[in-house]
Amino acid sequence: MTYQPPVQDLMFCVEHLSHWEQVSSLAAYTDYDLADVAAVIEGYARFCEEQIAPLSHIGDTVGAQFDNGRVTMPDGDAQAYAQFVEMGWQALTHPAEYGGMGLPKTVGAAAVEMLNAADMSFGLCPLLTDGAIEALLLTGSDEQKETYLEPLIAGRWSGTMNLTEPQAGSDLGRVATKAVLRPDGSYGVSGTKIFITYGAHDLTENIIHLVLARTPDGPAGPKGLSLFVVPQKIVEPDGTPGAENAVNCVSIEHKLGVRASPTAVLEYKNATGFLIGEENRGLEYMFIMMNAARFSVGVQGIATSERAYQRALDYARERVQSRPVNGQVKDAVAIIEHPDVRRMLLRMRSLTEGGRAMAAATAGLLDLAHHQDDPEIVALAEFMVPLVKGFCSERAVEVASLGVQIHGGMGFIEETGAAQHYRDARILPIYEGTTAIQANDLLGRKVMRDGGGTARRFAARIAATEAELAKGDTAAQAIGANLAQARDAFEASLDWMLENSRKDIDAAFAGSVPFLMLAGTLAAGWKLAKGALAAQTALDAGKEAQFMTQKIATALFFAQHILPECTTEHTRILLGSRSLLDADFPD
Amino acid sequence: MTYQPPVQDLMFCVEHLSHWEQVSSLAAYTDYDLADVAAVIEGYARFCEEQIAPLSHIGDTVGAQFDNGRVTMPDGDAQAYAQFVEMGWQALTHPAEYGGMGLPKTVGAAAVEMLNAADMSFGLCPLLTDGAIEALLLTGSDEQKETYLEPLIAGRWSGTMNLTEPQAGSDLGRVATKAVLRPDGSYGVSGTKIFITYGAHDLTENIIHLVLARTPDGPAGPKGLSLFVVPQKIVEPDGTPGAENAVNCVSIEHKLGVRASPTAVLEYKNATGFLIGEENRGLEYMFIMMNAARFSVGVQGIATSERAYQRALDYARERVQSRPVNGQVKDAVAIIEHPDVRRMLLRMRSLTEGGRAMAAATAGLLDLAHHQDDPEIVALAEFMVPLVKGFCSERAVEVASLGVQIHGGMGFIEETGAAQHYRDARILPIYEGTTAIQANDLLGRKVMRDGGGTARRFAARIAATEAELAKGDTAAQAIGANLAQARDAFEASLDWMLENSRKDIDAAFAGSVPFLMLAGTLAAGWKLAKGALAAQTALDAGKEAQFMTQKIATALFFAQHILPECTTEHTRILLGSRSLLDADFPD
Repeated sequence: MTYQPPVQDLMFCVEHLSHWEQVSSLAAYTDYDLADVAAVIEGYARFCEEQIAPLSHIGDTVGAQFDNGRVTMPDGDAQAYAQFVEMGWQALTHPAEYGGMGLPKTVGAAAVEMLNAADMSFGLCPLLTDGAIEALLLTGSDEQKETYLEPLIAGRWSGTMNLTEPQAGSDLGRVATKAVLRPDGSYGVSGTKIFITYGAHDLTENIIHLVLARTPDGPAGPKGLSLFVVPQKIVEPDGTPGAENAVNCVSIEHKLGVRASPTAVLEYKNATGFLIGEENRGLEYMFIMMNAARFSVGVQGIATSERAYQRALDYARERVQSRPVNGQVKDAVAIIEHPDVRRMLLRMRSLTEGGRAMAAATAGLLDLAHHQDDPEIVALAEFMVPLVKGFCSERAVEVASLGVQIHGGMGFIEETGAAQHYRDARILPIYEGTTAIQANDLLGRKVMRDGGGTARRFAARIAATEAELAKGDTAAQAIGANLAQARDAFEASLDWMLENSRKDIDAAFAGSVPFLMLAGTLAAGWKLAKGALAAQTALDAGKEAQFMTQKIATALFFAQHILPECTTEHTRILLGSRSLLDADFPD
Repeated sequence: MTYQPPVQDLMFCVEHLSHWEQVSSLAAYTDYDLADVAAVIEGYARFCEEQIAPLSHIGDTVGAQFDNGRVTMPDGDAQAYAQFVEMGWQALTHPAEYGGMGLPKTVGAAAVEMLNAADMSFGLCPLLTDGAIEALLLTGSDEQKETYLEPLIAGRWSGTMNLTEPQAGSDLGRVATKAVLRPDGSYGVSGTKIFITYGAHDLTENIIHLVLARTPDGPAGPKGLSLFVVPQKIVEPDGTPGAENAVNCVSIEHKLGVRASPTAVLEYKNATGFLIGEENRGLEYMFIMMNAARFSVGVQGIATSERAYQRALDYARERVQSRPVNGQVKDAVAIIEHPDVRRMLLRMRSLTEGGRAMAAATAGLLDLAHHQDDPEIVALAEFMVPLVKGFCSERAVEVASLGVQIHGGMGFIEETGAAQHYRDARILPIYEGTTAIQANDLLGRKVMRDGGGTARRFAARIAATEAELAKGDTAAQAIGANLAQARDAFEASLDWMLENSRKDIDAAFAGSVPFLMLAGTLAAGWKLAKGALAAQTALDAGKEAQFMTQKIATALFFAQHILPECTTEHTRILLGSRSLLDADFPD
């Protein structure tokens, strides 16, 4: 089974859902038109399909190997990574000044999806490097940018984010790693960091660790954290990697999934590090980067979902089993003919395409927010990020599970491949902030802080789409009716949340994850609905009939099968807080 | 982390939900009172906790090993199995005539849950043996019973069910294994069977395979299947295992979960078998047994859920991370204090206890159905079986996934143990009939065939519970209100299904799984509600205050957080059939 990048849908999303008109008129992106974007996406698609997708199963089987401080990657990874560097793919969205291609996130999101669908374990390395690049761009000194950015953007070096410690997971205020200023202006960094993705590997010449640590005189808690760059090999004056730094890989984890992505325990023993930006502002910097990283994890969810869907669809077309329930055919048929297999496939497809549609829209908002100074756009982009992360990651688990189910008994056999997605997907609602962390971010920072202003603007935009749908045909009207119901559930929940933000904050947060899932489901359904409108326009113009018909069918399925979940979430929020807060857990 | 069997809740379910008064007045069970049942359950609990639970993690790590036709079980399994035999646990629910203890299924269900919670891989062996015993009891000749039952019930031999072949999974009509009559009255059985749980292992003296095969002159399709007993070692006239039969284990599967349970490919090369019952009635016999096996798989779902819950609860009590959202405490607290962790724990607990409550009620009905000749009871018992299997197995996947989530990053590390439940649980909605097969069984055989009569009686019983709840306190009334809404959703869906059983059968079956999940969720919520009423009575009598308060809290949480899902399923059924049936899957 090979992976076929969904180029047509990715381009549909760029063209119709990512605010492309505004993004492409930004000064930074006027060089690129849709044809250029298509050429990039097609080229990257070929690379992912041909070079990367074949690595996924063998990587899962062999896993990254640890021996005496060294990590060896599975066969094939080194060659594929060398190709990745040669083709310059790490440079996609980074500034031309440091060798980047300067494409918008709108295009970058499509690339992240394809690479991670081809092999999520492989995709994690560039994903972390992107994070390091963005951190250095945002907060690094000129000298730091000079030293690190070019080789990182070229992909010759990779980056990591070192946040977690055994006692500090979601609670970064508990970070204990120390950084002590030395006479030469560098810092001696000491401590143990865990869960460091690609913390050690043999794919690049150097690994650039970004480390959250505490200077001796800083305040306790989260406000005393600073960010440091700690290269695995200290960079020589000529820019080449020199002596090994005092950063040791103690072990790598034996994980449920993404087994070809090494997750390291790193020990810093007075390692040489350099302060990034200002002291005590480390957490703030991390949060800036976090938006980008969280968005990418959401896209990984779409990626895993797409791969699981393609695999299940292939199987459902080939596997012949049982006669149809209506008795009209006397022979067994391919199982795709059976209503419940169709239900599962459509659920997979609509959740995947719904996630993609909302991620594309969010990517566009992030591009606009980055280059314009419109506080409403910035706020809306930041509102969308936890939705993309929360919805796409939780739904990826569900989609991968359905993928196993469609395979029946074969799904439980590792060689089939469906189980790998089920294992891989499970990390997505956990890393870069669990679903509850996303929900608290949404509710606390992005809803309550501005008194619900952004959330109401989000709802108003949806209402505008409903008005357009009302003018359409039966399918458009049906989509609109379900969208309106889901939006009502959202607005009623929002009112309740705002009221309880003053009255009963525990009750509000008792409903934070239901609220996140409500908003995420609504956002996906909304963007699919917008897509259906665009598809109808294309159909009316006689363009791509089969594809556009499918876009409308997917949006309708989502509206009728998935949007109704919003009503249940609303009920949970309204009725369920006391039963949640008052229950005991006796021994 | 050890497993603590939930003896108090199991006894609560027997006493208040399993129709114990009627069951214990059946002639077959008058020997046992509640104190006897408690003694048995407590004894079995101790055995499961002390002897079996410690095997689960090591068994998962090592797995069953295959070498040249022989299967070796993980260390410790042989010793534990010998203990199991010595204590006579296989005999629990089987007739005294063949050495059984003759306890009702009401008690058997509790035992199956505890054994499978302790180690699902281990539990599968006795579970399959139970199936073989029941098949022989129902349809075997006197001589067959004489030969096989005593050693099977003693646990010295184990049993298997051989249905699946590569081309025949859900579609048993495609079974191709042949059975040819020999002059001596035995049959030569030839063919390949796959997915045979405990098809080969080294725990017992003999393995008794029950094999679905086709005689040369039988009709094509499912009506030409007969059932055969094929002992791995042919039984000598003195009853001891003799020469090896021509049944070879070709390989075992490399599976996502239950890795210490060997899943064999068995090759029959003119193996000696004996017809059970009448020719061409094999599928019918299999279906009789299937009710029992499907019920047990549902109970495995409860078991996995309970183990996952206990593990998550332990972790949530110990793991300290972050200050409370209400800002009232300035230090980090155990994560069980955080609202969303409570939400996940309560979801796990209420789904688990809801499944247990409905399984207990169903076990009682199965006991009554087995010993009385009341067609309404038989029909209700048969109606409940797909609900138990469908609900408890699907929910087990969800519960295990929440268990991983509560552990955060640690959940993704295999050594933690949470991931094992997530992997193990995934087989439950697949084997012994996928969820769609359960749903079609429910809708076709148990709802449409009697024009919805049984389904309406089920709803009427729920309405009676609502009337009782209406007389109770605020919590009881709140439970009753949500129960009534869920029952309304069920009855409206039922009307629609019955109408479409005539008008549009495809549309009906397009909603079969939503209908199953609706009915299963409703049944679990109903039985928890009945439990809440019993708990209130106990509280009023001053009994077990902490436990009874918890029972009511769990029922209330289920009513407010999970029963509302029934409304969504109803919407899916009503609105969603055309969008499901009409969508295309273009290349």
